[in-house]
Amino acid sequence: MTFHQRTEKALAHSSVCVGLDPDPDLIPAILKSESNPVLAFNRALIDATVDVVGAYKPNFAFYEAMGSAGWQTLTDTVKHIRSRSDKVIIIADAKRGDIGNTSSKYAQAILQKMDFDCITINPYMGRDSVEPFIQDENKGAFVLCLTSNNGSENFQRLDVGGVKSYEIVAANILKWNKLNNCGLVVGATHPDEMLRIRSISGKMPFLVPGIGAQAGNLESVVKANWDGEKVNAFINSSRAVIYASSEQDFAERARAEVLALKQAIELIVAGIKK
Amino acid sequence: MTFHQRTEKALAHSSVCVGLDPDPDLIPAILKSESNPVLAFNRALIDATVDVVGAYKPNFAFYEAMGSAGWQTLTDTVKHIRSRSDKVIIIADAKRGDIGNTSSKYAQAILQKMDFDCITINPYMGRDSVEPFIQDENKGAFVLCLTSNNGSENFQRLDVGGVKSYEIVAANILKWNKLNNCGLVVGATHPDEMLRIRSISGKMPFLVPGIGAQAGNLESVVKANWDGEKVNAFINSSRAVIYASSEQDFAERARAEVLALKQAIELIVAGIKK
Repeated sequence: MTFHQRTEKALAHSSVCVGLDPDPDLIPAILKSESNPVLAFNRALIDATVDVVGAYKPNFAFYEAMGSAGWQTLTDTVKHIRSRSDKVIIIADAKRGDIGNTSSKYAQAILQKMDFDCITINPYMGRDSVEPFIQDENKGAFVLCLTSNNGSENFQRLDVGGVKSYEIVAANILKWNKLNNCGLVVGATHPDEMLRIRSISGKMPFLVPGIGAQAGNLESVVKANWDGEKVNAFINSSRAVIYASSEQDFAERARAEVLALKQAIELIVAGIKK
Repeated sequence: MTFHQRTEKALAHSSVCVGLDPDPDLIPAILKSESNPVLAFNRALIDATVDVVGAYKPNFAFYEAMGSAGWQTLTDTVKHIRSRSDKVIIIADAKRGDIGNTSSKYAQAILQKMDFDCITINPYMGRDSVEPFIQDENKGAFVLCLTSNNGSENFQRLDVGGVKSYEIVAANILKWNKLNNCGLVVGATHPDEMLRIRSISGKMPFLVPGIGAQAGNLESVVKANWDGEKVNAFINSSRAVIYASSEQDFAERARAEVLALKQAIELIVAGIKK
């Protein structure tokens, strides 16, 4: 199945993306006696939410902070998701990008060996740094365009003859998207600019951080990405879901948070359809 | 010792940086029977060159391609360098950069836990994505400014009211360099632009890829970075050094390549001093 088909299937199901960013200091005490508490945490979260999400997005920094054991936990987390569903996509939130031979090694490591469906990419190094990640139509990339953090103002909003640098990124990625396997990362915290990016991005899906802990506006995100059939975006929530509770009910509460977000999205869609 | 002091000490010694980018398919057959051929390869290269280099730069992609075992090899490589010399800096060529809490995790993983001296950073996400890497004066960051690959034209050379986007990156990093622990990555393949970046970068050291396999001009690099006392740049060579031979003499030949580069640099410096 191509990445495009896989993405369509996932989005038909749910626009909610759950960020799996486990911090050993924050996981429920009840898991501390497990042989691998972080993996047990991830598995429980996945089992509780897999039928109501469209994507999972493990953030590599949290696993790298655990050393080689963390790298194995990341691999085992992907395997667990695969064993539970073929309706979700698995996004490597790794923000990679380097010269061609190095990007090829990252693509081999993350898309082939670890079997992620796609990866987040930093575009600063340009076309030959992005291409190794999008040469296989069964795998894809979400390229940073306009991020949700304050620092987005420094280099993403440079004024290039009346257009912003992030618009130039969006236009180029659209041009390079020959296998229909590219998307863009666009933060929820900039609703007007998201509309502008949507208008120059064709049918590329967005990956949207910044809902929840970063306090973006859900309604504007859903409206900007409604394409007449579906919300063409994976809307990510990490901390609000995975740390909904630190007690025995953590997985149940995580599910409740996902359902609340999914229903809030559906309510906004129902309003658009009226 | 602060990162600045450590850098000065290393550069006084040698400007040569060796990129440790081991590819299991390319390492000498003689090492294949070792329990960890890649680690044996790195150790032999380090032992043969440690007295004549200023820095080592393992490229993370090559280790990640080997999974969790690769991550352990990376850690063991850093330990081996530390055990052999306190006159070199160890650069994590990881091209990281993310929102603040995530960059903090990467900094914890790579600078603290794995004990690298510094890391290469992608600036696209802006100030709050860079800061977690430069908050400790004993650790540092080399921030991508103008890279050596063809793709550098796409987003690094945008015309922002008469200045290029890479110049805006350089000026901002200089401003954020409060602890004197920032440097810039500037490719050897753009000699005129390197001069311009040097003129707006104060005393920040450069990390210069693109000599050797990427065919940059050594003379222009040395001249651009001569500060009257030293060449204020780590000039990287990877493939030309580590794959100088695939036979039993690989380490010896690697040393000869390093010495040839070191002597070529010294010859250019002697010419400047005349």
